[in-house]
Amino acid sequence: MTLAALSITQLQQALARGEISARDVAQQTLQAIAQHNPAINAWTEITAQRMLQEAEQIDVQRQRGETLPALAGIPYAVKNLFDVAGHSTLAGAQLFSTRTPAAEDAWAVNRLRRAGALLTGMLNMDAYAYGFTTENTHFGATRNPHDLTRVAGGSSGGSAAAVAAGLVHFSLGTDTNGSIRVPASLCGIFGLKPTFGRLSRSGSHPFVASLDHIGPLARSVDDLTLVYDALQGADAQDAFQAQQPVQPARTTLVQGAEGLRCGQLGGFFSRWCTDEVRTVVATVAQALNAIEEVTLPEAELARSAAFIMTAAEGGNHYLPALRRTPQLFEPHSRERLLAGAMLPSAWYLQAQRFRRYFQQQVLPLFDRFDILIAPATPCTATTIGQETIHINGQDLPTRASMGMLTQPISFLGLPVCTVPLLTTSGLPVGAQLIAAPFKEHLALRAAWALQQQRLTLPQPTLSDARDDT
Amino acid sequence: MTLAALSITQLQQALARGEISARDVAQQTLQAIAQHNPAINAWTEITAQRMLQEAEQIDVQRQRGETLPALAGIPYAVKNLFDVAGHSTLAGAQLFSTRTPAAEDAWAVNRLRRAGALLTGMLNMDAYAYGFTTENTHFGATRNPHDLTRVAGGSSGGSAAAVAAGLVHFSLGTDTNGSIRVPASLCGIFGLKPTFGRLSRSGSHPFVASLDHIGPLARSVDDLTLVYDALQGADAQDAFQAQQPVQPARTTLVQGAEGLRCGQLGGFFSRWCTDEVRTVVATVAQALNAIEEVTLPEAELARSAAFIMTAAEGGNHYLPALRRTPQLFEPHSRERLLAGAMLPSAWYLQAQRFRRYFQQQVLPLFDRFDILIAPATPCTATTIGQETIHINGQDLPTRASMGMLTQPISFLGLPVCTVPLLTTSGLPVGAQLIAAPFKEHLALRAAWALQQQRLTLPQPTLSDARDDT
Repeated sequence: MTLAALSITQLQQALARGEISARDVAQQTLQAIAQHNPAINAWTEITAQRMLQEAEQIDVQRQRGETLPALAGIPYAVKNLFDVAGHSTLAGAQLFSTRTPAAEDAWAVNRLRRAGALLTGMLNMDAYAYGFTTENTHFGATRNPHDLTRVAGGSSGGSAAAVAAGLVHFSLGTDTNGSIRVPASLCGIFGLKPTFGRLSRSGSHPFVASLDHIGPLARSVDDLTLVYDALQGADAQDAFQAQQPVQPARTTLVQGAEGLRCGQLGGFFSRWCTDEVRTVVATVAQALNAIEEVTLPEAELARSAAFIMTAAEGGNHYLPALRRTPQLFEPHSRERLLAGAMLPSAWYLQAQRFRRYFQQQVLPLFDRFDILIAPATPCTATTIGQETIHINGQDLPTRASMGMLTQPISFLGLPVCTVPLLTTSGLPVGAQLIAAPFKEHLALRAAWALQQQRLTLPQPTLSDARDDT
Repeated sequence: MTLAALSITQLQQALARGEISARDVAQQTLQAIAQHNPAINAWTEITAQRMLQEAEQIDVQRQRGETLPALAGIPYAVKNLFDVAGHSTLAGAQLFSTRTPAAEDAWAVNRLRRAGALLTGMLNMDAYAYGFTTENTHFGATRNPHDLTRVAGGSSGGSAAAVAAGLVHFSLGTDTNGSIRVPASLCGIFGLKPTFGRLSRSGSHPFVASLDHIGPLARSVDDLTLVYDALQGADAQDAFQAQQPVQPARTTLVQGAEGLRCGQLGGFFSRWCTDEVRTVVATVAQALNAIEEVTLPEAELARSAAFIMTAAEGGNHYLPALRRTPQLFEPHSRERLLAGAMLPSAWYLQAQRFRRYFQQQVLPLFDRFDILIAPATPCTATTIGQETIHINGQDLPTRASMGMLTQPISFLGLPVCTVPLLTTSGLPVGAQLIAAPFKEHLALRAAWALQQQRLTLPQPTLSDARDDT
């Protein structure tokens, strides 16, 4: 039995029954990472000592017969833009490699620690979270576990690869324009980008304050939802967090797609993807009885506005460092950050105005639909270094275009669960299940229904496990 | 008995007792405006026909013995940036003089119509609401009823002059950086700038979406509060409105300053005003037992950031028109709008970031204080055309500096009631009573206490009335 073969709940049952100790979990996990990480380059740091201490605590609780918290003994890792006490928060940047270590854990990491999860370490990403491929010039590219010649997607590429390789049960990523959904799509796992403002971002290194979200990635909807529920809660320190009640989603999963009114996004979203992606997303639409095709008017403009806000806020954030030490910047991003910092304020303000307008146009759609379906990426994973993709008769730049179908949705702030599907080429791709603001549970229910119907990509390690249990 | 001699409640009692009809009120008011407006130049348009129709309706209701709504038969006027059905919304701008008439009333005007108030017309203002003196090149300067050679303040100068002259019981103004508080101060009346997001702005011509507020001006706290209460309510059309419960303030007035912990703003706020202003504001502090002096750190920076946000958002708003027809623009504002539109986005973003930081620094003060006291303007009304004021040993530009003490407070979004005081020179000046977000009622209670103690400027028309009643 490999650890990855078990769901979070199964692993917790094994711990509760004494079939395995948290220490065993930690040691096996660290061994597996040591063995397999060199091939995928997902981890930039491993927190072995902390993990063993966290495991020790769980074992003490087990021996005392205490009730274990929700994620007790479950190995995970975080994108290296989350503060971890005693470690430098890298945000994928050489610029921060000598940074003063964080004094305390990020809010989300602290929540997971209190939920009993075991931190394995920090994960690779596009520098500054600005990118969709995790081709990090300083820390190296993260490689896709499905095909090591291919990218893992980004910017949370390490977060997706670590989970897809079966080395941790879940990870934390962040999503500004698609940075959870794109790597989840290319690595064939589940990812949740919650509603803008739902989860606290305190202690995560910011990129674009107006667009940044944090969220989990996992190999099953049940695992994903357990983690999401553990991350919910009010944080007075986060000025951007919406004042919304905690709304546990896991207990609602069994309702599945029952009663959900689903539609499929057409126009921009069906035009800008390959045939194999269109075909496999159509099977999701069919399974969810999404007959009607819905158009988001001006989705292209939404993407442009998201680019402008990203460039302006990201550029402003790094402007002092760009002035001081441009040579320390990621070559893929240096010029676009500089250009962003020089955008006129009128461009930025028009982008903000368009965002409010676009939200007003789109939100009424949720009077008629609970879920809107769209591809998560235009195509499956490209090879590392591949400069262009061919979509809709055009050659597009890979790094900017992998997020073209996710950008308009995060610009709206809507919650999205991506589900992994298998294309005819044998590579995975994701579908976005998009819900109304603060209706994460509906997207998760639809994802669960698809998984129950075995329409989603079988996770190799989970399918291996079926023989044992 | 003149109408202006009566409070809203007294006039309503006279209407209820049949001592006067709404038609009489309308006719007397229109006559008085025709007689006195040429001297003060407060009205840019008079809606006589509508006013008489509104009065007719009230009289029908009176004759039927129906319960009259909260402001039945009370004459008022609005800054000419509020939509009034059938009339062009000018926003003080020659640019809009041939604009298509508004199809419907602004949300606030509609509320007042439903409350039975009688609209006399629309009032002069600084073009675009960009200014603190209502020296409007196209529509002429509004003159201060206390001294016709002096400015009324701005940008809601017409709104303050119309009320101070006793021609209407109340008016609506807007406040972005001080545009209710500055003219209320210079014209010696009460003004309320509610919390940012408290009242709906639908149907008012925008200037700076991030900073615009609407609010009432009146000659007594009771009148002011009656109008404020009539304006409260949720408006789904206003994306900037905070989701806050309606909190009627009038019933709380009688509690006065009982139990309110008051402090006085020192530093920036006591440095940048004349001796006579400092002296008269000190009497307010004394009356409210505000012993402790409180410093808002970095108030100067807050003012700079407010200037940047104003220039950028205002400039962006008018950029298309500036490109097409620069010759139609107010000479006092054309160049600063152009300059604002060209600000780099990084300046605007830093101003937004500083705003969040400044709010975090200041809001904890309200753990210790319910009310913070500060002057509303650095000095009393300047003469029309006066280019500089001499404050704190320096000559400052009048038009930009009249709002220097209001800007840092609206930047925070805090509710403020300004109360009128009499300086030794015989001209009025206002004090700001500043409360925590959504605690308008506390500022109004403190203002009411000062009025009860006769510390506030006696309104000439109300004091005349004492002989009759």
